[in-house]
Amino acid sequence: MKKHNFSAGPSILPQEVFEKASQAVLDFNGMGLSILEISHRSKEFIAVMEEARALVKKLMKLGDDYEVLFLQGGASLQFVMAPFNLMKEGGKAAYLDSGSWAAAAIKEGKKFGTVDVVGSSKEEKYSFIPKDYTVGTEYDFFHCTSNNTIYGTQMKDFPKTEVPIVCDMSSDIFSREIDFSQFGIIYAGAQKNMGPSGATLVVVKKDILGKTGRNIPSYLDYSLHISKDSMFNTPPVFAVYCSLLTLQWIENNGGISAAEARNNAKAKLLYDEIDSNPLFECFSVPEDRSTMNVSFYLTDESKKEAFDAAWKAAGISGLNGHRSLGGYRASIYNAMPIESVQVLVDVMKSL
Amino acid sequence: MKKHNFSAGPSILPQEVFEKASQAVLDFNGMGLSILEISHRSKEFIAVMEEARALVKKLMKLGDDYEVLFLQGGASLQFVMAPFNLMKEGGKAAYLDSGSWAAAAIKEGKKFGTVDVVGSSKEEKYSFIPKDYTVGTEYDFFHCTSNNTIYGTQMKDFPKTEVPIVCDMSSDIFSREIDFSQFGIIYAGAQKNMGPSGATLVVVKKDILGKTGRNIPSYLDYSLHISKDSMFNTPPVFAVYCSLLTLQWIENNGGISAAEARNNAKAKLLYDEIDSNPLFECFSVPEDRSTMNVSFYLTDESKKEAFDAAWKAAGISGLNGHRSLGGYRASIYNAMPIESVQVLVDVMKSL
Repeated sequence: MKKHNFSAGPSILPQEVFEKASQAVLDFNGMGLSILEISHRSKEFIAVMEEARALVKKLMKLGDDYEVLFLQGGASLQFVMAPFNLMKEGGKAAYLDSGSWAAAAIKEGKKFGTVDVVGSSKEEKYSFIPKDYTVGTEYDFFHCTSNNTIYGTQMKDFPKTEVPIVCDMSSDIFSREIDFSQFGIIYAGAQKNMGPSGATLVVVKKDILGKTGRNIPSYLDYSLHISKDSMFNTPPVFAVYCSLLTLQWIENNGGISAAEARNNAKAKLLYDEIDSNPLFECFSVPEDRSTMNVSFYLTDESKKEAFDAAWKAAGISGLNGHRSLGGYRASIYNAMPIESVQVLVDVMKSL
Repeated sequence: MKKHNFSAGPSILPQEVFEKASQAVLDFNGMGLSILEISHRSKEFIAVMEEARALVKKLMKLGDDYEVLFLQGGASLQFVMAPFNLMKEGGKAAYLDSGSWAAAAIKEGKKFGTVDVVGSSKEEKYSFIPKDYTVGTEYDFFHCTSNNTIYGTQMKDFPKTEVPIVCDMSSDIFSREIDFSQFGIIYAGAQKNMGPSGATLVVVKKDILGKTGRNIPSYLDYSLHISKDSMFNTPPVFAVYCSLLTLQWIENNGGISAAEARNNAKAKLLYDEIDSNPLFECFSVPEDRSTMNVSFYLTDESKKEAFDAAWKAAGISGLNGHRSLGGYRASIYNAMPIESVQVLVDVMKSL
């Protein structure tokens, strides 16, 4: 039976990525060796790493003032690396508190200096994106989360500021056209729109580095990783390879703009059903709705058993909401076909 | 043609690991989903993580005073995490300088406090393991590298000391019986004897933690990872799964003691050839020779072309020495069959 995987991450990837990755585990590139056993210093893997780094810049339309790294440790380690690399001793940074992950980043930032939370929707259960704030030049950087996986909200605009913008794009990277050159650092755990868990994408504008005077531990130092072409130590070879396969799939299917059009169509299909079906309601306000994670709940809890049975019977998995919020969450990342969204909508209509 | 992969890491893994991993990329456990797309919070992956953690403790014969973590970032991040978690502010630690990776750990340790190098073989190109040192109680911990991949040396004994021993076992973990309960922290990048790159094994004796008063960033805090059962953030799912497959293969083939017997037989076969063949010489002194990495060179450089052509023709790959040392390095990790070592020995004899 066909499965429809609505997991929030790790999550669905294109079927052709699974097929190519499975083959590479047996024999990579006709080398007679598994991708899991080849040296990261082999010319075959260096080609993978370099193509992946170049393709990220191409898809994002970024120039040579940016560098692309594939690191490890997820967004959680970036919560540490960003302030370590950007916040001066005794410095301060501005953070936007738009969800649990943003709050986790704030907690880490406070270990390095003063953190000003310039906007927060915490008191309203993160149901919207805080707006009407400014980020002055007194800050070393501004940190925000472009998409809030749990609550299903997404930043549609980013503030104009003279300080570097650090953006956690873990859950909507490569999903929509943005002027990526407005950011100082973009980071993302791979496991939503880019690949399997185990790789972390970091895009850095080089000229913002080297200004803190801190003695940064080597693995946490962006400049060191840049100087080693993202090969300071053994990279997560297989996760980088799968990320390359996914990036190639994005490019071969029209790039980010085509992905955005597909994502908008999927999101409209699902939000239209929620808005027209009295049994369902969104957690988030309409103007901040995410095109990646649709978080909703049943207005009539007595229908829960029937709904749960129906979507499971339809081959749907991963639809339960985050444990902190409850309800349901349909994650409809790049690789999710609209046909699977239609299956969910049909189940909702049938209730 | 059969390939004989002597790479130093990432490196050979058991063939059955490749086959099971390849299948799991298409369909994990009959779920109808790829191992790459399942949630790390699914009961199926939690079972993988818990079995892997338990099996490490079982193979190492460790009790409940130890905890097992699967993290990211490789040994390079452990060079940072170990002192962050164990060195008091203004404290000092003892390090053994037995190779380039030990030296890299020392460099990071110095960012956290005073480092006393209690022994070093650097001046003799790391051709032996420094001995005749003591580690007094004035240190917060003692750090050593059990096996030096580049130079082909291996610690046969560890010092008696009252302070916690932190040991980087990246290149000989699970290769030989050791009293693992003599260590405070054991860490290892997976990509030699345990799995593909992208997972880092950390074994921690719990009672040594929490004594520094430092405000440790979350991802770098062993105690936090322990409190979350190694699921503080999204783990490297596929690398952990492959590590479990390799751990199961070790257990099903007689455990560590049987692996040690196989490794000793392989190492003897190769060292006997080097000792008896006037064309070859080891970089390291006999008493410190590694059973994992055999680093050697040609005594007659005019034979280089013939030797290189002969081992390549025999299907051997990954035999070149580390770029910092030159010569050759045969990495004969757990998964390397003795038949492949025999192929190399036959080539050496034929020269």
